[in-house]
Amino acid sequence: MRASVLRNGSMVYRDDVPSPTPGEGQVLVKVSACGICGSDLHFAKHGARAIELSKQMVGMPSLTDGVDLSTDVFMGHEFAAEVIEAGPRTQAPASGTAVTSIPILLSAKGLEPIVYSNTTLGGYAEQMLLSAPLLLPIPNGLDPRHAALTEPMAVGLHAVNKSAIQPGTGAIVIGCGPVGIAVIAALHNLGIEPIVASDYSSARRDLAQRMGAHQVVDPKIEPTFHAWSRIGAGAPVIFEAVGVPGILNEVLRDAPRSARVVVVGVCMEPDAITPYFGIAKEVAVQFVLAYEPAEFSETLRRIAHGEIDVAPLVTGEVGLEDVGSAFADLGDPERHCKILVVP
Amino acid sequence: MRASVLRNGSMVYRDDVPSPTPGEGQVLVKVSACGICGSDLHFAKHGARAIELSKQMVGMPSLTDGVDLSTDVFMGHEFAAEVIEAGPRTQAPASGTAVTSIPILLSAKGLEPIVYSNTTLGGYAEQMLLSAPLLLPIPNGLDPRHAALTEPMAVGLHAVNKSAIQPGTGAIVIGCGPVGIAVIAALHNLGIEPIVASDYSSARRDLAQRMGAHQVVDPKIEPTFHAWSRIGAGAPVIFEAVGVPGILNEVLRDAPRSARVVVVGVCMEPDAITPYFGIAKEVAVQFVLAYEPAEFSETLRRIAHGEIDVAPLVTGEVGLEDVGSAFADLGDPERHCKILVVP
Repeated sequence: MRASVLRNGSMVYRDDVPSPTPGEGQVLVKVSACGICGSDLHFAKHGARAIELSKQMVGMPSLTDGVDLSTDVFMGHEFAAEVIEAGPRTQAPASGTAVTSIPILLSAKGLEPIVYSNTTLGGYAEQMLLSAPLLLPIPNGLDPRHAALTEPMAVGLHAVNKSAIQPGTGAIVIGCGPVGIAVIAALHNLGIEPIVASDYSSARRDLAQRMGAHQVVDPKIEPTFHAWSRIGAGAPVIFEAVGVPGILNEVLRDAPRSARVVVVGVCMEPDAITPYFGIAKEVAVQFVLAYEPAEFSETLRRIAHGEIDVAPLVTGEVGLEDVGSAFADLGDPERHCKILVVP
Repeated sequence: MRASVLRNGSMVYRDDVPSPTPGEGQVLVKVSACGICGSDLHFAKHGARAIELSKQMVGMPSLTDGVDLSTDVFMGHEFAAEVIEAGPRTQAPASGTAVTSIPILLSAKGLEPIVYSNTTLGGYAEQMLLSAPLLLPIPNGLDPRHAALTEPMAVGLHAVNKSAIQPGTGAIVIGCGPVGIAVIAALHNLGIEPIVASDYSSARRDLAQRMGAHQVVDPKIEPTFHAWSRIGAGAPVIFEAVGVPGILNEVLRDAPRSARVVVVGVCMEPDAITPYFGIAKEVAVQFVLAYEPAEFSETLRRIAHGEIDVAPLVTGEVGLEDVGSAFADLGDPERHCKILVVP
């Protein structure tokens, strides 16, 4: 069958990948759509570094455990699919049912993340395996291409939940790529006001506004915290959704006293901070990752019931042959937010 | 009168400093004892850098505002004193009363920190001014030399309060200098168990044990988090009380999942971290500074009533002539923890 795999840092189209066979507890599905995640772009470029960093955290299971970059790597963890058939002695929704799932495969080996793997297929393929107990039928006739955005949008809900922000406190969202947009949507669902969002890209600022930001800022024109002091009041919760070196230090330097910072952008490189900035203002920094299963299913419900409109996020669709060029195209924030791979 | 002042990076003895005159709301006091704080050592060495960093935090009032390093700087913020006389129209305890205070002077200019100043005297002097409304009489016949440790010990109580740690959760204290010791004492007062403390110095490990640590670790022999996994259970609250570059990144790398880190060591230099370590484990980092007035008075009460025995912390006493050599001596953790200046 056809798939797009990571080989030597690039996405390579293959038409010779063997179809997987579902084991007990597993379900063979046909991929309907799979979003391209910024972390996939990053892994393609800096996979060796990610693996090296993970190994430094001795004793911590990691998404990159066992990944060998010298052979093809399967990726794609933002998927919606259609049930083909269940494995032996496995209860599953009927063939043809539209489903999604958190990207974890239960197998004889235990829990395998469906993120980076030399053996476990991800959503950049015609077919893949999912875990019967984790399947979520896509409700309310939702377009599977939109259901594929459950995963990235759940990241935003998790970040907002971990922040423990409550109405009455305002928020700043720095960076309006898919992660920042997911945070804005979750803040909007919670009734947070004001939501001040900043991004250098006007297309992304427009999207932020559409998703619920009350005020958008171009940091080239006005520093984000300057805008906050004009618009907001009190100590905001600040969501850092950029994930490049230097941003966290700017936030520590410019944040108001007692600010809470949620780091949801994934910075894989070393980063220089000035702890004194955080100390002088007693800043709290919460690093966050991924989501809980309940946050994933709640996000699917919200999308299916129109509480989050993900349609404006989808800026492109490609087939498996063009995943490589889509990876390149995603570098331009004016043109793209989320590209779906539709096998 | 006599004082020790910071001049060109060194502490210089002077016998020609004019005695201060208390204004309205102020009280002239005779200094009984003043502890030397690590931040004073740091400011003597890196004062210019501290002033520069503070200026980068636009709009934030700072302890170094207005300080001019080209003229003498008064320091000393861990003091106990004896009332001499009150300023005009000012109610104050009777002459001879032993007092302490948070290091803030109320003046016509507003709130002046008694930390680094070209004009406001600190505790490295025979006499100084305090604010009548902030004076705390030293209770229970407590030795003023021990009352002078209220300030550094309050830093520990504040850090523990900000961490929101509760009995049932264990703690790791990295670094057993005065700040780490203050944290250990406050954790001990709260009934936290286990308290695992680490320091390269055996003298400081002994002190940590004496102040309430259940287990002490020499990180040269056993990595701190390795010891934790042997002794503790669950996600601990980790107090980083070292404050030198590199420590925070080690904590992020080695901490268990969902760990909470309280940064109480004051690192004034830029520091390199790997955000990915924090992200992968969803670590929370709370930077803390100083204390609330209520934490200061509660700490004084605890010391006066024997709930904290600060006597073992005091490893030396010097006169005003020898503050400079005491600054140098404090570099040796085997010999010294807290040196008191007794004018």
